[in-house]
Amino acid sequence: SVHSSWLHGSAAPPLPQAKFFPPVEGVMLPTGSFKDRVAFITGGGTGLGRAMTTTLSQLGAQCVIASRKLDVLQKTAEEISSQTGNKVHVVQLDVRDPEAVSRCVDQVESLTGLPDVIINNAAGNFVCPSERLSPNAWKSITDIVLNGTAFVTLELGKRLIQSQRGASFLAITTIYAESGSGFVVPSASAKAGVEALYKSLASEWGRYGHRFNIIQPGPIRTKGAFSRLDPTGEFEKAMIGRIPTGRLGTPAEISNLAAYMSSDYATWMSGAVIRFDGGEYVSMAGEFNELRRVTPDQWNIIGMMTRSTKGS
Amino acid sequence: SVHSSWLHGSAAPPLPQAKFFPPVEGVMLPTGSFKDRVAFITGGGTGLGRAMTTTLSQLGAQCVIASRKLDVLQKTAEEISSQTGNKVHVVQLDVRDPEAVSRCVDQVESLTGLPDVIINNAAGNFVCPSERLSPNAWKSITDIVLNGTAFVTLELGKRLIQSQRGASFLAITTIYAESGSGFVVPSASAKAGVEALYKSLASEWGRYGHRFNIIQPGPIRTKGAFSRLDPTGEFEKAMIGRIPTGRLGTPAEISNLAAYMSSDYATWMSGAVIRFDGGEYVSMAGEFNELRRVTPDQWNIIGMMTRSTKGS
Amino acid sequence: SVHSSWLHGSAAPPLPQAKFFPPVEGVMLPTGSFKDRVAFITGGGTGLGRAMTTTLSQLGAQCVIASRKLDVLQKTAEEISSQTGNKVHVVQLDVRDPEAVSRCVDQVESLTGLPDVIINNAAGNFVCPSERLSPNAWKSITDIVLNGTAFVTLELGKRLIQSQRGASFLAITTIYAESGSGFVVPSASAKAGVEALYKSLASEWGRYGHRFNIIQPGPIRTKGAFSRLDPTGEFEKAMIGRIPTGRLGTPAEISNLAAYMSSDYATWMSGAVIRFDGGEYVSMAGEFNELRRVTPDQWNIIGMMTRSTKGS
Amino acid sequence: SVHSSWLHGSAAPPLPQAKFFPPVEGVMLPTGSFKDRVAFITGGGTGLGRAMTTTLSQLGAQCVIASRKLDVLQKTAEEISSQTGNKVHVVQLDVRDPEAVSRCVDQVESLTGLPDVIINNAAGNFVCPSERLSPNAWKSITDIVLNGTAFVTLELGKRLIQSQRGASFLAITTIYAESGSGFVVPSASAKAGVEALYKSLASEWGRYGHRFNIIQPGPIRTKGAFSRLDPTGEFEKAMIGRIPTGRLGTPAEISNLAAYMSSDYATWMSGAVIRFDGGEYVSMAGEFNELRRVTPDQWNIIGMMTRSTKGS
Ligand SMILES: NC(=O)c1ccc[n+]([C@@H]2O[C@H](COP(=O)([O-])OP(=O)(O)OC[C@H]3O[C@@H](n4cnc5c(N)ncnc54)[C@H](OP(=O)(O)O)[C@@H]3O)[C@@H](O)[C@H]2O)c1
Ligand SMILES: NC(=O)c1ccc[n+]([C@@H]2O[C@H](COP(=O)([O-])OP(=O)(O)OC[C@H]3O[C@@H](n4cnc5c(N)ncnc54)[C@H](OP(=O)(O)O)[C@@H]3O)[C@@H](O)[C@H]2O)c1
Ligand SMILES: NC(=O)c1ccc[n+]([C@@H]2O[C@H](COP(=O)([O-])OP(=O)(O)OC[C@H]3O[C@@H](n4cnc5c(N)ncnc54)[C@H](OP(=O)(O)O)[C@@H]3O)[C@@H](O)[C@H]2O)c1
Ligand SMILES: NC(=O)c1ccc[n+]([C@@H]2O[C@H](COP(=O)([O-])OP(=O)(O)OC[C@H]3O[C@@H](n4cnc5c(N)ncnc54)[C@H](OP(=O)(O)O)[C@@H]3O)[C@@H](O)[C@H]2O)c1
Repeated sequence: SVHSSWLHGSAAPPLPQAKFFPPVEGVMLPTGSFKDRVAFITGGGTGLGRAMTTTLSQLGAQCVIASRKLDVLQKTAEEISSQTGNKVHVVQLDVRDPEAVSRCVDQVESLTGLPDVIINNAAGNFVCPSERLSPNAWKSITDIVLNGTAFVTLELGKRLIQSQRGASFLAITTIYAESGSGFVVPSASAKAGVEALYKSLASEWGRYGHRFNIIQPGPIRTKGAFSRLDPTGEFEKAMIGRIPTGRLGTPAEISNLAAYMSSDYATWMSGAVIRFDGGEYVSMAGEFNELRRVTPDQWNIIGMMTRSTKGS
Repeated sequence: SVHSSWLHGSAAPPLPQAKFFPPVEGVMLPTGSFKDRVAFITGGGTGLGRAMTTTLSQLGAQCVIASRKLDVLQKTAEEISSQTGNKVHVVQLDVRDPEAVSRCVDQVESLTGLPDVIINNAAGNFVCPSERLSPNAWKSITDIVLNGTAFVTLELGKRLIQSQRGASFLAITTIYAESGSGFVVPSASAKAGVEALYKSLASEWGRYGHRFNIIQPGPIRTKGAFSRLDPTGEFEKAMIGRIPTGRLGTPAEISNLAAYMSSDYATWMSGAVIRFDGGEYVSMAGEFNELRRVTPDQWNIIGMMTRSTKGS
Repeated sequence: SVHSSWLHGSAAPPLPQAKFFPPVEGVMLPTGSFKDRVAFITGGGTGLGRAMTTTLSQLGAQCVIASRKLDVLQKTAEEISSQTGNKVHVVQLDVRDPEAVSRCVDQVESLTGLPDVIINNAAGNFVCPSERLSPNAWKSITDIVLNGTAFVTLELGKRLIQSQRGASFLAITTIYAESGSGFVVPSASAKAGVEALYKSLASEWGRYGHRFNIIQPGPIRTKGAFSRLDPTGEFEKAMIGRIPTGRLGTPAEISNLAAYMSSDYATWMSGAVIRFDGGEYVSMAGEFNELRRVTPDQWNIIGMMTRSTKGS
Repeated sequence: SVHSSWLHGSAAPPLPQAKFFPPVEGVMLPTGSFKDRVAFITGGGTGLGRAMTTTLSQLGAQCVIASRKLDVLQKTAEEISSQTGNKVHVVQLDVRDPEAVSRCVDQVESLTGLPDVIINNAAGNFVCPSERLSPNAWKSITDIVLNGTAFVTLELGKRLIQSQRGASFLAITTIYAESGSGFVVPSASAKAGVEALYKSLASEWGRYGHRFNIIQPGPIRTKGAFSRLDPTGEFEKAMIGRIPTGRLGTPAEISNLAAYMSSDYATWMSGAVIRFDGGEYVSMAGEFNELRRVTPDQWNIIGMMTRSTKGS
């Protein structure tokens, strides 16, 4: 258990049922679905952001990726565009700084024009007991996740409105945004804030041609998330053990979902919150799900016991 | 674990923190809060229904309790009214039968007049893998829980509307009504249906002077619930282990909440769903809550690991 | 308003912003995505069920559609398979009858073998003040929607488990399943029950290779839904007026979503509930959304008023 | 409508059904329920905070109220303690400043010792189209509501843990925290963040003897809220028109609820979110609730129309 072996973690194997749920790595949407479209992805240099950028680029989009580490962005941009043949631009950006956000959007305007697709994916997170959180630790997360997302969204939104341009906005949150979770409390709070922001703007800015949707991912192995959230590797085993589909998700899978939600096939989708987690959330939350450990023979006995009780 | 010792279960002790959360057994509302009021409680002969009836009776209500077992009802009624000095009436009723419901309300009208307070508490449930459920097993639960609640609520509602009488309706559901849960699927579905029924009528029948609210209890030991849901006693330990307040709830606690919600102090409460579970639901649902098992020393090491990662 | 002109309704025009949200009618998934797959769709003869069947058939699935009206099913089956070149089978079925469900699955087994894709789409509904609902009216809806879905799902699930076969289950519910709604109360309750059923089985039956997901559609014009829910045509205008994307959805759009969710691209999706409603739900639910009626000039004045108050 | 008459608003009358839902102004809990307890209330000088402080003080608590305006706090403190006979302390505090929060808790410790009851009630809000929000306007709200609540909660929590003291934490959020809402977007986001914070800590800090709960109030007339959210008074009429109980809430009502949730009667309540809004939320959110405008005669005709359709 976590207690004894947490220091010697390693990638955990999938459960037997995972054979029924093989991940598909190929791109789902028709070729050219994002032709003549511009996509702007925060945190597009790594992990899920990189994967979503790759998919949009394969589908014909001109992409702009933005985050703090310019070298990482550049390397990613080159790799993706050499693979897809479509241009990937980079802009250095710390989303916490509203003036930097404004300058970044200036740059985007001159590089590609305003985007048609916006994905707010940049985030920070780490595991920590809440009694050890300083005010600065709290703000280090909420400033990126909540304020950063708001600054990017409001700045782009205003300029799109000014230009009478429609757009699709997507935010990547997490399955614990709704339930909350101990030990990742700044992230839980900030992601919940992002969800309210997107649901609110879905209502308010539809009239300007904007739609706003959310993906709540379950665990998908990326260097960023797993090094900060499961540094010992031990937690992964526990997660897989309770995921009904018996495995982690893959970056390609979430990218296909994100591309769909950002595409013209989903122009009627707004204000939606899509949990994409292999079933982990419902599996954790349901009070009697632990009974999956009971064996068929034990169920036979329990059946007899409860039937006799019912008759009492 | 459930696996090895499930046959030899026994009442599990509370967690250490339970000392901070002692249950109060006394009645909360002012004496006479339900004077001149009539309360109708289904399943009022046993368990939580009996406890809520006792509290309302202590507060001055004339109560009517209804369920299938007349002898159980009569014994309860006598015990309560000898304790409180207020009359408790009994009506035999199988809530699955709409004609029986109509006759029951006739009886109530002649015994006490139409009720001011209605508590839909009757229910059935048992644990069972869903692949073992026959259509009849499915219906045995949904007929009581969903159709039964609907028949009682619609019949009383119609007559109250006819008589231009206001009323407070309360339904007792469960914490897994929203999330669903394996192994109690007919109950989860039927209770979710009850919640939608009550939220819907809160909207629709406010204009007739009716309010509708819901309590979702977590685990409270009653003979009925625990014999059918945890016949081996093993599951209780697991539940307590994940309840933040470290103990089961008590019938007196839920009775005080139910009395408050049914009282004039809560005339502005309608369409509310109150989870009352010692924190169990959020504790199960939050993805990282298992980290409560990590020790302070381990956190020190994790802190160093994630800090060094952040700098990368 | 509904009051004065409800008798002379007619199809309402979209809002201006709908130009930003044009529906795509083409099929989204790659050709052959459902090759060698069998799909079973209840209520597949009409409306949304027919549209989803058409899309799956175009993508290579062998489909079986089932409902009460054999002639309607047959006409649909012929039209679809002549269009797509893939076989569409029909089975007469009243989902309320568990024995008929069992016989239906026998037939499916001999026609096509057990299905890989199951869509529970059959439903009944009508608008009615709840005080006018008889017990039979209540049951006429819940028997189809909740019990019918349960019977179909449990019967197919058991046989798939027996055969160690994986499958994707999808249920079509509605945006008011969570909030409830007056005037469609049996439907709201039964659909909420279906959602709990599907979330529960997502947890429980993952181990058998099954996944369970839900679409909550907003208003999509079909003869079935609109004739029973908006017989006067008046309500449509009000709905469109509050839909942020400014128009109704189309059968093709929900079919692309349903096909995605049922496909191998979504093998990691389970226990998900996808609201697909043009933003209607968040728009109705948000307390201040009515302020969309305030004009820019009025906002200028309000801005001055609240600023001066803040300084007080 | 809002359009034409928004400048000439005035307090709107209740709906007829409000006669069934009269507010009770008296204190609900038994005298002395908070004897020897210390309660800390942010924003306790005005509005709902003042009302909750009054109730706790009447029930025997020693209260400490904290906000920016020392004069307002002092006036309130004197008025309450002269009414109740129990001491009310004041501490000047801007919750946005973590060092000020730390100094404030120092003061509380020396004045009364650490509190047993904490109510996070301080907030800011104003109505504004989101495209008019500057980054500073955004932060002016989220800094108070989300960061302020976090700073107060974390600081008090840490010290209570250090001292091995239990406590009850309550946060006042809003009914649009879950759904989001246009025109109050920073508030919606920040309040959603507060809810996640409280649900998370309910899970995590139960082991330290702390419980965390939330009230989501609907509209209750206070100078603060109504001057900033409905400066023209016009919106009030629309709100009352859709509240099933037909009236606004009162400060006394929410105070009785808050006192209950903070009392020993509710030691088993943690992680709960109580909507207290007269039914407004479910009434707005339910798709068909607008049909309340249909008259009985019109229903007769609709009934005939839908029945004939069903037979088709
Ligand atoms: N992987 C999972 O299992 C999982 C689960 C749930 C949710 N998510 C969410 O998925 C998203 C992507 O996560 P990931 O797993 O791909 O991790 P990741 O690789 O660490 O991605 C985070 C990205 O955010 C960027 N970023 C961080 N701070 C920034 C700032 N101040 N300004 C601009 N950009 C900043 C980072 O780039 P720089 O360092 O260059 O700034 C990085 O590219 C996140 O929103 C995360 O919360 C992931
Ligand atoms: N205890 C818990 O931990 C817990 C947790 C969550 C929810 N709940 C809910 O709390 C409520 C009370 O449960 P409990 O724990 O007090 O169990 P209980 O003692 O078994 O109560 C169930 C009651 O329902 C009555 N009932 C059953 N079928 C009926 C029918 N067809 N017609 C009329 N009455 C019927 C029973 O009386 P007869 O046999 O005489 O008909 C019995 O009095 C239930 O709604 C339950 O779902 C309890
Ligand atoms: N259209 C919308 O705006 C909308 C919005 C929200 C949700 N939905 C949902 O979408 C689904 C499809 O609705 P729709 O708009 O396409 O309406 P529809 O054309 O009336 O579809 C209902 C289907 O259910 C079948 N059905 C009804 N009772 C049955 C029974 N006892 N046994 C077997 N099949 C039965 C009907 O076929 P037979 O008459 O041949 O039995 C019919 O094909 C429904 O679940 C509905 O609740 C629709
Ligand atoms: N009334 C309603 O209808 C309603 C509805 C939903 C939710 N609520 C919530 O109920 C709570 C109370 O609202 P209310 O209606 O009573 O309005 P209110 O009288 O304006 O209360 C807000 C309080 O917050 C304090 N505050 C503001 N900024 C602060 C800061 N930076 N540091 C410390 N204290 C600060 C204010 O005091 P100072 O100015 O002295 O700092 C004031 O006492 C709020 O959380 C509000 O969101 C109210």
